[in-house]
Amino acid sequence: MELKLYVDRISQPSRAILIFCKANGIEFEEVKIDLSKKQHHSPEFAEVNPMKQVPAIVHGDFKLFESHAILIYLAAAFPGVADHWYPADVHKRAKIHSVLDWHHSNLRRGSVGYIFNTAVALALGLPPNPEAAAEGEKLMSASLATIESFWLEGDAPFLVGNSKPSIADLALVCEIMQLEFADEEERDRILGPHKRILKWIEDTKNATAPYFDEIHSMMAPIREKLKELKVQASKK
Amino acid sequence: MELKLYVDRISQPSRAILIFCKANGIEFEEVKIDLSKKQHHSPEFAEVNPMKQVPAIVHGDFKLFESHAILIYLAAAFPGVADHWYPADVHKRAKIHSVLDWHHSNLRRGSVGYIFNTAVALALGLPPNPEAAAEGEKLMSASLATIESFWLEGDAPFLVGNSKPSIADLALVCEIMQLEFADEEERDRILGPHKRILKWIEDTKNATAPYFDEIHSMMAPIREKLKELKVQASKK
Repeated sequence: MELKLYVDRISQPSRAILIFCKANGIEFEEVKIDLSKKQHHSPEFAEVNPMKQVPAIVHGDFKLFESHAILIYLAAAFPGVADHWYPADVHKRAKIHSVLDWHHSNLRRGSVGYIFNTAVALALGLPPNPEAAAEGEKLMSASLATIESFWLEGDAPFLVGNSKPSIADLALVCEIMQLEFADEEERDRILGPHKRILKWIEDTKNATAPYFDEIHSMMAPIREKLKELKVQASKK
Repeated sequence: MELKLYVDRISQPSRAILIFCKANGIEFEEVKIDLSKKQHHSPEFAEVNPMKQVPAIVHGDFKLFESHAILIYLAAAFPGVADHWYPADVHKRAKIHSVLDWHHSNLRRGSVGYIFNTAVALALGLPPNPEAAAEGEKLMSASLATIESFWLEGDAPFLVGNSKPSIADLALVCEIMQLEFADEEERDRILGPHKRILKWIEDTKNATAPYFDEIHSMMAPIREKLKELKVQASKK
């Protein structure tokens, strides 16, 4: 049964799904929905996801959107996926759901608020909103502190005390990687105080090598373009 | 194994979990964490949920928070729960996850923004924020329209085409019931245009009778108190 992933690699949950499929040997067709060209607003894509957001998938005649739901579906529908990605044990699984639900209103909300109102707005030619950016950074920093002090508590390398990564590690680490669109100075300010987070990102990268770097390789060139746009904007 | 639910019935996800347990004959002890007395900030409750939020559960020595994760856990851990609440079928289950994930950044975010900045702020003696209330109402109304035109599409009485309720129906309907804290006029303005939603609320209520009304019975007296507070505030 054919699996199509409707994604744009600038979207962090799109990257999480791409890395998950590659790391698990799941065959798929990558259908790029170019957000900068507003392809997510096309009538064709509305047939795939009426919410007009990436990522979305079509597997045979089954359509699905919302990245956590997609990761869970892929882990369940493809028998080759190792148990650690989405454990069958009811208690371990519940902890994965808990961290993914927490993510929505914390790290993700903070990160989207910060990156949209600094990098993305600039790229789309929208007026920056420094107040919303500051609010996003505050929530993102608080969320990083919570990950460090609670979700990564103990000696285990991955979330909720696991020795191997789950779909939650992939979802949250890809979110944090969105900071690759920010200036080095901004990244250092936000991530620098969180050494444990930096190690966790490395561990997740190593556990999904070489796909993690491959899927994130498009970020550096975009960051350079954004830098140029910032210089131009400051001259106006 | 003993199940303790740490809840406050003024919290919509707390009510969803209480109704779920009662409707499925799951025995539990209800431990009230009185939000108006800031009991969620006590050191004792921090041992149960370090995020200082209700609902949270303790089942034997297993602790869990985040209401969607709790509903999924209860459906999986208690063998007497009928399949329709959280279907074993991978496709049906994926649709439940999709609507629950969508809920976080849409209906829930809008509802919390609206109700907090109208009713709850007043009850806590905080200054109202009409701008945040208006933004919350806008997102809530847009979410209700999406539920009506997409999630409740077709002739089936419940979400994603189901003939019986799932944990998603319970979570979303309890969220909408938060409008019982608002004035009748406000409720009519927001809910009035959505006849299909009103029918869905009735269907969910009937499917979980008599527990739905029992758990929501504390809302009307609080609404009357809030009315008095509004009159007092307008006289200042």
